[in-house]
Amino acid sequence: MTYKVDLNSDLGESFGAYKIGQDDQIIPLVSSANVACGFHAGDPLVIDTTIALAKSHGTGIGAHPGFPDLMGFGRRNLQTTVRETSAYITYQIGALGAFVTAHNAKLQHVKPHGALYNMACQDAPLAKAITEAVARYDDELILLCPGASELALAAKSSGLRVAKEVFADRSYEKDGSLVARSKEGAMITDEALAIDRLVQMITQRTVTTIDGAIIPIEADSICVHGDGPKALDFVRTIRQTFDTKGIQIASLSEIIA
Amino acid sequence: MTYKVDLNSDLGESFGAYKIGQDDQIIPLVSSANVACGFHAGDPLVIDTTIALAKSHGTGIGAHPGFPDLMGFGRRNLQTTVRETSAYITYQIGALGAFVTAHNAKLQHVKPHGALYNMACQDAPLAKAITEAVARYDDELILLCPGASELALAAKSSGLRVAKEVFADRSYEKDGSLVARSKEGAMITDEALAIDRLVQMITQRTVTTIDGAIIPIEADSICVHGDGPKALDFVRTIRQTFDTKGIQIASLSEIIA
Amino acid sequence: MTYKVDLNSDLGESFGAYKIGQDDQIIPLVSSANVACGFHAGDPLVIDTTIALAKSHGTGIGAHPGFPDLMGFGRRNLQTTVRETSAYITYQIGALGAFVTAHNAKLQHVKPHGALYNMACQDAPLAKAITEAVARYDDELILLCPGASELALAAKSSGLRVAKEVFADRSYEKDGSLVARSKEGAMITDEALAIDRLVQMITQRTVTTIDGAIIPIEADSICVHGDGPKALDFVRTIRQTFDTKGIQIASLSEIIA
Amino acid sequence: MTYKVDLNSDLGESFGAYKIGQDDQIIPLVSSANVACGFHAGDPLVIDTTIALAKSHGTGIGAHPGFPDLMGFGRRNLQTTVRETSAYITYQIGALGAFVTAHNAKLQHVKPHGALYNMACQDAPLAKAITEAVARYDDELILLCPGASELALAAKSSGLRVAKEVFADRSYEKDGSLVARSKEGAMITDEALAIDRLVQMITQRTVTTIDGAIIPIEADSICVHGDGPKALDFVRTIRQTFDTKGIQIASLSEIIA
Repeated sequence: MTYKVDLNSDLGESFGAYKIGQDDQIIPLVSSANVACGFHAGDPLVIDTTIALAKSHGTGIGAHPGFPDLMGFGRRNLQTTVRETSAYITYQIGALGAFVTAHNAKLQHVKPHGALYNMACQDAPLAKAITEAVARYDDELILLCPGASELALAAKSSGLRVAKEVFADRSYEKDGSLVARSKEGAMITDEALAIDRLVQMITQRTVTTIDGAIIPIEADSICVHGDGPKALDFVRTIRQTFDTKGIQIASLSEIIA
Repeated sequence: MTYKVDLNSDLGESFGAYKIGQDDQIIPLVSSANVACGFHAGDPLVIDTTIALAKSHGTGIGAHPGFPDLMGFGRRNLQTTVRETSAYITYQIGALGAFVTAHNAKLQHVKPHGALYNMACQDAPLAKAITEAVARYDDELILLCPGASELALAAKSSGLRVAKEVFADRSYEKDGSLVARSKEGAMITDEALAIDRLVQMITQRTVTTIDGAIIPIEADSICVHGDGPKALDFVRTIRQTFDTKGIQIASLSEIIA
Repeated sequence: MTYKVDLNSDLGESFGAYKIGQDDQIIPLVSSANVACGFHAGDPLVIDTTIALAKSHGTGIGAHPGFPDLMGFGRRNLQTTVRETSAYITYQIGALGAFVTAHNAKLQHVKPHGALYNMACQDAPLAKAITEAVARYDDELILLCPGASELALAAKSSGLRVAKEVFADRSYEKDGSLVARSKEGAMITDEALAIDRLVQMITQRTVTTIDGAIIPIEADSICVHGDGPKALDFVRTIRQTFDTKGIQIASLSEIIA
Repeated sequence: MTYKVDLNSDLGESFGAYKIGQDDQIIPLVSSANVACGFHAGDPLVIDTTIALAKSHGTGIGAHPGFPDLMGFGRRNLQTTVRETSAYITYQIGALGAFVTAHNAKLQHVKPHGALYNMACQDAPLAKAITEAVARYDDELILLCPGASELALAAKSSGLRVAKEVFADRSYEKDGSLVARSKEGAMITDEALAIDRLVQMITQRTVTTIDGAIIPIEADSICVHGDGPKALDFVRTIRQTFDTKGIQIASLSEIIA
């Protein structure tokens, strides 16, 4: 039997003279690029370069909007109103979308970044602010988020398709949510184990929780990192293992038909 | 005989808790709104509010991109490369355009702001960077700029339509360029004289230069200000005078058919 | 009998082309100026102008540091670490302090702004991060904050003097904390009542809580606003009433001897 | 005979999640650290870390203020007024100085960054705006700049001491100014030649210009870079060569007695 899964990575996070990530090396290895939009990371030149690179490799292009907090890389909770959040999403997707248009490419998906992502997974009004803004811009966009989240619920009720994201390096609670990073055992550091877990998620559609329970999970896409040589090697190992297990890397658009 | 002219104003220049201009009062009086895009002024919430207001009054909506210099309100020369300028334009038009889309409205024109506008009027490569970026985004957009400028030349060669802008409160040199603000007589402060000059530009297609020469000029649009009660009164007086002279305020799209 | 109290106001909140407040009119009416430091409001030119103005009127100069959130005017909660908060305070006080030095004036006090102030009133580690940073810069500075707050406790344990601030337009809970703005009755909108309450706080050292209880309170300083003609009139009325009640406006340094 | 020279490097240029330079490795190798102040690079946490590191190695601490242009890393010309420039300098030195105070260290010098440095070398009013602001903050500070520059002239007339900076990797014109980077031969890429030139500057107080002339030059300090392993090796080679030539690395304060 053949399985399909998308590999997504956060990209275009450099800013001015500042470089983060190895975009040119990770882009050929993934099928979806979440491109920072200039609020928590990225700038117009970086966006331009990243979109061009993603297009040249046939990597699906997504907007990766975050809080307006460059100093905190969008990782710090910020208390915004629904109207503010909505406007921030529209602004960032539009800005990014213009480069996609300029490169004759197509915007495929949206994945909120960092604190905005984490907060919206648990906060229904915030989630709705995001998904409504996305749908108003283009209701054919796919929202990339955990299956068990307020974001997924909101996306569906806004008429968006949802791509369910899983994490190779994170533990899960019984309700399908991620174990908080502050809790012991939250991170899966053993790479072989991490890959076994991915294979289980994709082929058996289950995951073993931090408490040892086996719960159902759906994995349309796997989030991988692009920083450092270890991260690249890990992605390569995932791809090789998947190859032997009949798991094919496919674009999000193909998976979420 | 009936003449037609557009009135344009820079709008949406508030930011967060900071308010500039009386957008709700000037928008009903003008036919084109140049909306700041968040670099030199404006923020996502302000853009959203301004687009909604412009749409409700049938005012033509334009992007008003500037240098990334909020502290200087985009009025200070900044030495950017062609690639930077181009990316800044794409980013800002895209961000603004997303709100236009969200409000089911249409983006009509682009007018660069402040130092970017002034520099691009005289700098051919900079002008081209701007107009090429605009054309890549949407080649049906109108570029609003002085008729005698590098911007107008670049717009035409990028395949854009040009709306020729004149200023009520500025003197002109013999080559059709604006007299530098630092020069004596650069500003026309007598309002009656200013309006007479506008009527002359529109009905006779000429302007009297600072040296007393009469040169040809084309006036598709007049730039008016929206700050302070005096500015509003001035616009009202322009409209009343035009009414008696058979000059009709029309949208830019209608004028630049 | 004569009483003494300080009047403080948040000032220097303009930014670039953006003007907030009527600093030139409110500064002569208050005895302490809390000057924004460039993170949530204010810029170097504005700071320079504000310090010069405060000095010329003999108004006590304080630093008014906030979160790095110009778009939200420092009014939105931001989750920062202790190290980040501490560094933000040091940076802002230092920046402001350099202008105080340049004008041969003296920095008198520090009052955190907006969300940072509100959060620190209730969060002991955040309060300590602030007061330790202040004390490291200059332990002769006065911390301006509510008497019943974590900020006051932290200030004392950092070796700083505390000036207890009260609000004319806010109701109080039984524990001496401010009634949350979202609660009915939180704001005192009747100006005569507001002034009566101030007189009671100063002369009887008590306040009537939102539940009608009478609790002790200490009022070293009253926070007044400087926006709009109504705000100025209110301050003038406070001063006139105080005059008839034997309450003298005095500098914070004099009160917190 | 023994010669003394200072080695200075631009440091503390990281920002939030963004890392530039290898400060922990270059700081032990240089005698003066020019620390970015948060406008073109650096943030409060980075400043705090950098000052602590410099102090622990006994490296002289300097402020490295730049234009408010993080996106351009302060390398783009920005047209500011004298008042703006002056206020930007005061703000940045004050912010940095507060961390120096917090670490019980001493601020030794100021070196403007990037475009601000280059413009001020040739623009007398801009240079004066900078040096007057420095002198107002602390007239015992040393200004680090080329000996043949408007900055050096302005520093002297503002009552500041000047440390004359030379560059290992740049050619010189006959008037002692740097050859513009755009000109062929502007950069010295041969490291052995670069070091020979340094030795000549220090021991013979002359430099061979791009045209082959020999002109007098004074070298109190050499600017070295800290990015990349090659840069570190180059600094180590400079130190080793100097050792064999009787050239001692000394702090700026010792050299500019």
